[in-house]
Parts: sequence; C-alpha cells; structure tokens
Amino acid sequence: MRYITLNEAASLLSEHDNFRLLTHSYPDGDTLGCAYALCFALRKIGKKCNIAVDGKLPSKFRYLDKNYKDQDFEPAYIVSVDVASMQLLSDSVMKGIKDIDLCIDHHRTNSVLAENIYVDSSAAAACEIIYQIIEMMEIPLDEDIAAGIYTGVSTDTGCFVYTNTTPRTHRIAALVMPYCDWKNINNINFVVKSIAKVNMERMIYDTMEFYAGGKCAIVYTTIAMQIALGAGDDEMEGLANIPRQIEGVMMGITMREKTGGVFKISVRTNDGIDAAKFCKQFSGGGHPGAAGCSIEGTLGEVKLKLIEAAEKYL
Amino acid sequence: MRYITLNEAASLLSEHDNFRLLTHSYPDGDTLGCAYALCFALRKIGKKCNIAVDGKLPSKFRYLDKNYKDQDFEPAYIVSVDVASMQLLSDSVMKGIKDIDLCIDHHRTNSVLAENIYVDSSAAAACEIIYQIIEMMEIPLDEDIAAGIYTGVSTDTGCFVYTNTTPRTHRIAALVMPYCDWKNINNINFVVKSIAKVNMERMIYDTMEFYAGGKCAIVYTTIAMQIALGAGDDEMEGLANIPRQIEGVMMGITMREKTGGVFKISVRTNDGIDAAKFCKQFSGGGHPGAAGCSIEGTLGEVKLKLIEAAEKYL
Repeated sequence: MRYITLNEAASLLSEHDNFRLLTHSYPDGDTLGCAYALCFALRKIGKKCNIAVDGKLPSKFRYLDKNYKDQDFEPAYIVSVDVASMQLLSDSVMKGIKDIDLCIDHHRTNSVLAENIYVDSSAAAACEIIYQIIEMMEIPLDEDIAAGIYTGVSTDTGCFVYTNTTPRTHRIAALVMPYCDWKNINNINFVVKSIAKVNMERMIYDTMEFYAGGKCAIVYTTIAMQIALGAGDDEMEGLANIPRQIEGVMMGITMREKTGGVFKISVRTNDGIDAAKFCKQFSGGGHPGAAGCSIEGTLGEVKLKLIEAAEKYL
Repeated sequence: MRYITLNEAASLLSEHDNFRLLTHSYPDGDTLGCAYALCFALRKIGKKCNIAVDGKLPSKFRYLDKNYKDQDFEPAYIVSVDVASMQLLSDSVMKGIKDIDLCIDHHRTNSVLAENIYVDSSAAAACEIIYQIIEMMEIPLDEDIAAGIYTGVSTDTGCFVYTNTTPRTHRIAALVMPYCDWKNINNINFVVKSIAKVNMERMIYDTMEFYAGGKCAIVYTTIAMQIALGAGDDEMEGLANIPRQIEGVMMGITMREKTGGVFKISVRTNDGIDAAKFCKQFSGGGHPGAAGCSIEGTLGEVKLKLIEAAEKYL
C-alpha cells in the first residue's frame, strides 16, 4: 500500500491494460461518472475496460451508458473510483477480485485497501481527479467522457451550490460542457421532479422536528410512506438536503428506513460542524459537510439515539 | 441611439465620470450585482458613481452594499444595467434624469431608449458583460466587485442550473470566487429557507393544476395566503420555478396577486418553447426560457386567460 501522485496514477493507467473499474454501493453520479468517463477514455486509447456496478444502473443515469457494452476479457488491473471504504464495495462488484491495484478517491476518510492510492480531498468530486488524469494522458474529450465528468462534478456539488465547490470545479465544468448534453443532465438531476417525489418532500416536512435550540432538524421516511406514495429510489434522492436548508439549522439529519429494521442516516452540516466525525460514533463516515451511517432499531429508538448524540455534539 | 461594441462600452466608461447606475424595478441579483460591481470598479479608478435602486435594497442582498455609501455629486453620465425596457425604470430611479447615456443589458428583447446600447443576449447574466468590461478596463478585482459579479451570474442561472448557463458563466465564476465569500452568497440565495418560505412552497403545491395534457402547470399565490403565512418578498422569490419542475411539464405559470387587482405572472418554459413570446400577448417580455407580464382581473379571470392562451400556444 502506497500513496502516489496524480502523475503516477496516470502512468499506472497508461502502463496497464484489461481494467475493471469498481464503483461504490448505492451508486451516485460521482462514482458512476468517474467509471464511465475513465472507461470510455481508456477504451479510446485501445485498452480493454469494464465497469462493475452494484445492482442495476439507476434509471436516471442511463444516459451514461448508452454507448457502453461489456467487453470480453479477463480483468488484470483493478481500479476503484470514488470508493471511500471496503464496506462500500458489494460482493457483486468484488466478484472474482482478490486485490485492488489502484484506488482513486476524494474522501478525506478513505480507507480502501489498495496497492496504490491517490486521494485528493480538495476535489469536490472524484470526477475532478479523473478529468485531470484524462487530461494528463492527453486523451481527447468526447461526449461519453464529458457526460461522465459533468455528471460527477455537478451532482457532488448540488450543481455548484455546496461549499465543497472550488474554482477548479467550475473550470472543469466549462471545459467539458461543449462536448455533452449538460442541459439534459441538469434537467434530470436538478430540475425535473415526479409528482411522487414532490409528495415525498411534502410528507417529509410533516415529520420535521427541531432540537438543540433549533440548530438540529431531523426528518424521516419509512417503508410505509414510500409504499403509500409509490416512491422508488429515484424519489428518495436528495431528501437528505431538506432539513439543513431551514433557517438557523446547523445540522440536518435524515433517517430512511430500509428493510431489516435498519435506518440509513444522512447528516448534512454547516461549515464548522464535522458531519463525518458525528457519523463515526455510529461506525459511519463521509465528508465534513455530508456524511452517513446505518443504525438498527425502531424509528423511535434510532431517533432518540440521534437526538441525544446531536444535542451533545452541537 | 446606436448599438456599440463591448470595447466601445468600456471606452465610454473610461472617458466619462460622475456616473449614476440605474437598476430595474423588483431588483434582482443580476441588476444589483451589475450595479454594485461596476460602481465599486469605477470608484476604484477614481471616478464618482452612485446607484439608484427602486425602493429598499432587498435584505438578502445587503452583503452587496456593506462598503457602499452615496457620494455627493451631480450625475453626468447615466448607465442602465440589466434593464430590458423603460417600463422597468421606476419614477424614483429616474428622478432628475432626462436621458440614458449607456444601456448595458443581456435581454434579447431590450427596448431601452439610450444614446449607446450594448446588448449581448448570449450572456446568461448581465454581470457577465460587466465582468468583461471590468477586465477590459484592467480594474483589479476585490471583494465588493467579485461579490456583485458572483451574485449576478449565480442568481440569473439558478446557480448554474438553467439552460442559459454557458462555459463562460462558469469561467467567470471561477475567476471571481477567490475574492468573495461565495459560500455565504450561495447559502443566502440557494440554500437557506425560512419556515415561512417552506410553508409557502407547500401551499403553492396545493394550488397546482395541469392543462394542455399535462404540458402546462399553473399555480398561484394570493395576498391572503401571504398574510396567513407571514411571507414577505423574500419568501415569494423562486416560487416561479416550482410548476416547471414537474415531470412532463413544458410551461410553468405562476400567478402572484399584487395589490390593486393585478396579478404578476411568471412563465418558465423548456427549451423550444418561447416564454417571452407567450408573455408578449399580455404586453410582457423577458427571455426565451423565463419571462413575465402583468394581468388585471380576479384570480379566476386571470387564470382562465392564461389557460386559454397556454392551450393555444402549446
């Protein structure tokens, strides 16, 4: 295990072939954007490359793989993209894989076990790193590569709103926009809402409670609510940002009931309050402003645990 | 009246002094961002400059004028920024003014009567033009100038979401971000919502109706609703984007009751449907994707007029 430079990461990709790119579970726009952009770039210079995704590609991201077909070869060089820890690599993604050769990530808390590790936690999205690598390898941009990069940098920043955005994020967006249908990508990820999603948002507001003198807002969704509204995974996305938006709230907590008596917890915080540290108490992790964990128990039990922890923390 | 180049606009500003900058009524982030950025830039090179704003500066934009104080001089060169038509210049803004010397704008439908006119309708925000002029005049950026520019380019694009965004918009954002507290600006304009605003949004969803086979969604707010929720002008902002977001909707219409039996209408459309042309039927105007007009009548009358026009138009 060794930490390498961006240059070395680009060299390793140039030197090897027959790649398999690993994405994290509950795949989001950044891990998928990285994988598709890098895959199309590597194929463009004559290399073989496949992508491993946990489960089905979420329907909203189908535009990423319209020109993608699995290639037939034995994977020889394994690269994880935007994966923060081994727990985020599902059995299906790791199928047939012993070791990870290269880990490319932007999570400060990265703990992936890999031969070579490149982490740049100043990157708003791992796609910023992938862009720089593709540029360094002098692979010309095309629609597929640009769509992946734009998807990663835009979704991981809430379309350039979040505080992790940097001038570099904007510069990269400006460079890839001419090659891809970013209007459609924005429309899918930031504009259009189904009626089911709107109704889910409205229902979530009904669950909102405030603690720590208004500095903490907590909301929840249950499986029963999802069923009642016909809300699938697409409808559940982005809900984690709702409680933190309220005036005066420093920490927004969203509890989402999953099957098996487990709640998936998303925490969003203002500058100066470390969401990743808060989630670490519950064996979770993430970024300073956006982190998550899983807690077992009933709605009431899990909520109480979180409220107690939040009141102590704030 | 003559149409001039960007270079000529910069030259006119260099040659003259004792400026008065005119902003449009219902001042938004772009007209204010232009005025404050240009004012601080002109003062920086030793010129005198004041800004005319219709009414009070909206409280959310107070960060723009923290270093601004009116100067004492007789205005000699009058510049309108982001003003599309003479009707958008209120009596208070035009007080003591006979002629406009220079009009700087990005509205395709611009009809301001001015000695010199520079319109660049490819600019997402008029602030993009102001940035280019400041760059051309080689005036170094500072916090006040950068905060104005960032406010304009971000608010007129919904934080780089809308289809009017271009690579140039992103490049300008990247260039001004290091000088200003853009995190605070994003927080104010795109993140934080008061409880009153959340409740106003929820109430608006209750008014939503669909026409033209689901391609048109129409919502309204009344003065009574505003009073019931304690919603001021800040709470009413951004509501125009709600109906267009719904899956399948091509044209979103928001009716807002003002005093005196008048409704202010905001129209937002998908690419390919001209909102400005639609609003022109009601003596309004704006951009292809975002336009407005005013219609007199009762809620029912105004709604019927709009629905009939929309069904014909779509």
